[in-house]
Amino acid sequence: MAPTDRFVTETRLRVRYAETDAMGIVHHSSYIVYFEVARSDYARQRGSSYESFEATGHHLAVSEINARYHQPARYDQEITVRCWITAMQSRAMTFHYEITDPAGTLLVDGSTRHICITQDGRVAKLPPSWREWT
Amino acid sequence: MAPTDRFVTETRLRVRYAETDAMGIVHHSSYIVYFEVARSDYARQRGSSYESFEATGHHLAVSEINARYHQPARYDQEITVRCWITAMQSRAMTFHYEITDPAGTLLVDGSTRHICITQDGRVAKLPPSWREWT
Amino acid sequence: MAPTDRFVTETRLRVRYAETDAMGIVHHSSYIVYFEVARSDYARQRGSSYESFEATGHHLAVSEINARYHQPARYDQEITVRCWITAMQSRAMTFHYEITDPAGTLLVDGSTRHICITQDGRVAKLPPSWREWT
Amino acid sequence: MAPTDRFVTETRLRVRYAETDAMGIVHHSSYIVYFEVARSDYARQRGSSYESFEATGHHLAVSEINARYHQPARYDQEITVRCWITAMQSRAMTFHYEITDPAGTLLVDGSTRHICITQDGRVAKLPPSWREWT
Repeated sequence: MAPTDRFVTETRLRVRYAETDAMGIVHHSSYIVYFEVARSDYARQRGSSYESFEATGHHLAVSEINARYHQPARYDQEITVRCWITAMQSRAMTFHYEITDPAGTLLVDGSTRHICITQDGRVAKLPPSWREWT
Repeated sequence: MAPTDRFVTETRLRVRYAETDAMGIVHHSSYIVYFEVARSDYARQRGSSYESFEATGHHLAVSEINARYHQPARYDQEITVRCWITAMQSRAMTFHYEITDPAGTLLVDGSTRHICITQDGRVAKLPPSWREWT
Repeated sequence: MAPTDRFVTETRLRVRYAETDAMGIVHHSSYIVYFEVARSDYARQRGSSYESFEATGHHLAVSEINARYHQPARYDQEITVRCWITAMQSRAMTFHYEITDPAGTLLVDGSTRHICITQDGRVAKLPPSWREWT
Repeated sequence: MAPTDRFVTETRLRVRYAETDAMGIVHHSSYIVYFEVARSDYARQRGSSYESFEATGHHLAVSEINARYHQPARYDQEITVRCWITAMQSRAMTFHYEITDPAGTLLVDGSTRHICITQDGRVAKLPPSWREWT
């Protein structure tokens, strides 16, 4: 369950046909993209879009992802991705995600860890405005 | 049918599960990626990889694509993409593609047109070594 | 320009990071998926979702796509896909698309042609409710 | 490092342009697809393709994925995916993966867990021929 003691964003998406596979359900790699869309939304709602972050010459390199698949989503289904931060370090941060259907059933949850790097690949400190997020 | 009077490359691919959709067949957008893989192969086989082309600060921007879908490909199927050049101009070029199954049945054919641009988006001349291709 | 004498839908999307490529812009195959999202929206807004259409045991097989790329879209950009029908036959239909940025600049336009087929791949008539669309 | 006491497959891939993102490297979700390609290869090399497995009315539903990203892969790079089984149960199995560049540098490693289900979504036993794999 999403925590109540911190900033949690909700992103609503509708499953695209291209995201399904021959099993008739959403392909497992598509949820990794849903996580990313939610992460973009999170930064935007915190007032500092990832696009403006990259404009400073930094990137957030993904260092780890984990996902657990509970129930499949299907074409045209509306899903909600909840996203929040579970760890914040000077050079790295971890997001957690929960994807649910309109009835609130948990479909997928997971986390991604990110390291702040410069354009030439060196590890750098996260912007102070981001480090305050928790 | 692929022409016999010019350079034609053959790229063999095996359909990935992620490229299928809920209809049980390869999603139509996946063939556009197969075209691109064949184009990369074409440049490599002509002795000038697209990767080395980009290293000179140029890109080939796609200006047009066309595809006709005759028969569907399915998961795990081996397919062949034939690729050749149908038009060469000083700043633009057109590739044609034919995708067939092992029995030679035509699955998809199409074409893509490309304009040579610099990193900052200005139209530029194609490298002389590429302009000799036909 | 989108016509004024027929039903035209507008679908708003925000470019995902996963849809970009190493050129720093949206990969050309991603627009084919945007077309599909707009087409799904079109059916839904006409009161007959593609999901309910497939539930009758029919599919719309893509038989042809065409796209012209005018200006690139970039990560996080909001884009609008306008979609309308340009041809309706008993067993086939053609959609046209225009993708613009918030300033109204045309980024990509194109069309897709579809044939109505049954689960076992035979060509079939489109549902009467769909054939009235123009 | 890949183990020496069990069956390990090696799948060679060349990075596609469509798999890169605006950071100039392979998008993190693309490696999840590489894992899947390696898994398909594994089953094929064990003499029982996933395609023939699905033909029996079963699916392998992904229940969990984990990936750690060490170094990025780039467009046109040749990569090797090593794949082996780390756990086998009557109804579930776990694969492990290592992706390296031609110099042997570890780029990404990870694992996926799968549950055997029937077409209607019930958990089922894995085929005996698969259960012997380790």
